Amino acid sequence: MTASRRHDPIVTLTTDFGLRDPFVASMKAVILSIEKRARLVDLSHEMPPHRVLPAAWFLREACPWFPAGTIHVAVVDPGVGGPRRPLVAKAGGQLYVGPDNGIFSLVFQKAPLEGAWQISDPKYLLPKISRTFHGRDLFAPAAAHLARGLPPSVFGPEILDPTTLEIPGPTVCPDRLAGEVVWVDRFGNCATNLEEAQVSRWAAGEPFTIRAASRKIRGVSESYASVPAGRLLAIFNSSGLLEIACNQASAHEALGLKEGDPVVLERVRNPRSKGKS
Amino acid sequence: MTASRRHDPIVTLTTDFGLRDPFVASMKAVILSIEKRARLVDLSHEMPPHRVLPAAWFLREACPWFPAGTIHVAVVDPGVGGPRRPLVAKAGGQLYVGPDNGIFSLVFQKAPLEGAWQISDPKYLLPKISRTFHGRDLFAPAAAHLARGLPPSVFGPEILDPTTLEIPGPTVCPDRLAGEVVWVDRFGNCATNLEEAQVSRWAAGEPFTIRAASRKIRGVSESYASVPAGRLLAIFNSSGLLEIACNQASAHEALGLKEGDPVVLERVRNPRSKGKS
Amino acid sequence: MTASRRHDPIVTLTTDFGLRDPFVASMKAVILSIEKRARLVDLSHEMPPHRVLPAAWFLREACPWFPAGTIHVAVVDPGVGGPRRPLVAKAGGQLYVGPDNGIFSLVFQKAPLEGAWQISDPKYLLPKISRTFHGRDLFAPAAAHLARGLPPSVFGPEILDPTTLEIPGPTVCPDRLAGEVVWVDRFGNCATNLEEAQVSRWAAGEPFTIRAASRKIRGVSESYASVPAGRLLAIFNSSGLLEIACNQASAHEALGLKEGDPVVLERVRNPRSKGKS
Repeated sequence: MTASRRHDPIVTLTTDFGLRDPFVASMKAVILSIEKRARLVDLSHEMPPHRVLPAAWFLREACPWFPAGTIHVAVVDPGVGGPRRPLVAKAGGQLYVGPDNGIFSLVFQKAPLEGAWQISDPKYLLPKISRTFHGRDLFAPAAAHLARGLPPSVFGPEILDPTTLEIPGPTVCPDRLAGEVVWVDRFGNCATNLEEAQVSRWAAGEPFTIRAASRKIRGVSESYASVPAGRLLAIFNSSGLLEIACNQASAHEALGLKEGDPVVLERVRNPRSKGKS
Repeated sequence: MTASRRHDPIVTLTTDFGLRDPFVASMKAVILSIEKRARLVDLSHEMPPHRVLPAAWFLREACPWFPAGTIHVAVVDPGVGGPRRPLVAKAGGQLYVGPDNGIFSLVFQKAPLEGAWQISDPKYLLPKISRTFHGRDLFAPAAAHLARGLPPSVFGPEILDPTTLEIPGPTVCPDRLAGEVVWVDRFGNCATNLEEAQVSRWAAGEPFTIRAASRKIRGVSESYASVPAGRLLAIFNSSGLLEIACNQASAHEALGLKEGDPVVLERVRNPRSKGKS
Repeated sequence: MTASRRHDPIVTLTTDFGLRDPFVASMKAVILSIEKRARLVDLSHEMPPHRVLPAAWFLREACPWFPAGTIHVAVVDPGVGGPRRPLVAKAGGQLYVGPDNGIFSLVFQKAPLEGAWQISDPKYLLPKISRTFHGRDLFAPAAAHLARGLPPSVFGPEILDPTTLEIPGPTVCPDRLAGEVVWVDRFGNCATNLEEAQVSRWAAGEPFTIRAASRKIRGVSESYASVPAGRLLAIFNSSGLLEIACNQASAHEALGLKEGDPVVLERVRNPRSKGKS
């Protein structure tokens, strides 16, 4: 354990496979059979089945915190066996392996894409590629070869147009900033697509109310614990996004708030002006 | 990280313990307290409680992909504390540790068994063996000592008759090949006990239909994506088994198909012969 | 892999974050970005949300089995962002990182506390501390710096009064020993706060019955398998606690037994005395 000793390569796994079935285990097995030193790190296998967007949000939040050189394998792959391309990409000094269906496209908005390649050279894949499980037969071996130190460009031709996902943006008006819920977490906290910087710019120091599911919230709290247990609040969460939450309870359950629901900021009309009218 | 540097020993874990309780954590702790360099790899802790057969299928699919020298601990152990023997076995260059209740018997159909031994030498177990948790007190220490490099034969007397599980085989008739569903995965895909090679041999190039839950499917598809979303299909899955599936949907839910249900292949009668009659 | 080669530092993770959200992944990322050699070990991310006591029980069962030098990060943190102190502690040769809300207090009953310190030096934290996610911004970096070899005393001032949790103790009478269910595990086994040593002392070799949910159990079984499948029994479990269980079935479901329900031991009156009266 001298100072010069290098660490083993880190390979993370994110899938919608769950853990009841042998899919994740088989991917780990294939990676370790090619690169025994790979340090496997489970991110999540609970991505909603067949839905690329939630996985893209998940990866956007998690991946940028990893050190340079990390290899991320992500498989939410409803188009497996169809024409979608298998992809390896480099961005922000890290490596990404998965289907080219936009799963990494929100990461690439935060980490500059340095290059993307189509995985196609059979030398780096399992000898037999099944029709239904590219996670094991194609993405796992590619990740393991990256872990062995191969550069991403060896796997096949460059991809110049990686698939991107459309994500909803907020609507900005002088008196109104309208976003929507983009993520409901395990605790029932409802994150929106309204970023702290944008809200601050729009508010310009003036007070505003937040409307969500027919409820009104005045201002943004500093912590969950700043309101009594069970009480509704708004807060800038750990991703820098405006979040509708209840202290120690579920805003999702209390309000019925869910992905896609509007969350609207409105200026408080000046009470003196109101008094005059 | 020179070429000669060996990797740390890989120890995989498969149980029906779930992760709400401290069982898996305690097993990991015991392994690491005996062999700190053990590289723990979770396969699954979501095996159906007390049911050995699903775990045996799971291990059959996952284990053969691991590299030689891997140590697999598997604990689905309804007979804990009773007369069932604790076992360590070697097969296909890998090592297996768990109850001798057939949990590894489907692996051993694919990987030739090289030997099995009863874990009994108290030197390699925890000082106090509880009545309810051999995963921690007996299997974890045995696995850790294997990871330290001890050969499996040191743990106790050889077992010449390891327990095997009966699994249903298909019924083969000239006009009919009758199997059944053996695994329903997270996506609702229903794998059968009909292997691709056997189906090909039986079909001999002639067309056939597939009957499952009163539905008829014509032929075997090349990929999920080869039919429209939601549509029923049959496919040879990544285990080489015939599978009844719906593209991006659950065949289990759509058809009510479940483990043990029949899936029957029947020859399409020659339309010309039919015309003549 | 010479004998002198030291192992990489072990960092365990226990949270109520689940795995659908990017919280655990982000914590792992931050730890690895500070100490790439950290060997991450998931204990559980399925602690009941916002409830400190179950996590404290979980850690009490699991942590003592780990080797000296292990670093445990545990985050069930309903008071995040409020006045509760972030803590690093040393006990029984292991290190503990988490909120000072009593989450480690049951571990410290078993492993002598060697010292506790408030995490406050910003040098060892992320540059920006969010209001909602100290797991990533504060506990993960502290754990990683411990893994790098820093002593726990560098993080801030000593805490002399770490928070402790009240846990219910049994009521001891000459003819009666009354405890309660403290843990229902995945299998529906119901562990009580009645320890084997205490029960033995109280019983003093005389027979007793066990009353739970209006059912009576005679004596303590040696193994689950010592009664027919489905039958109710009492057993000293792997934590040394009296447990109400059903062989291969759920005592929780069969009896409706749950956390906090009474379990009462009563002496069997001497049948001869009875005959005489």
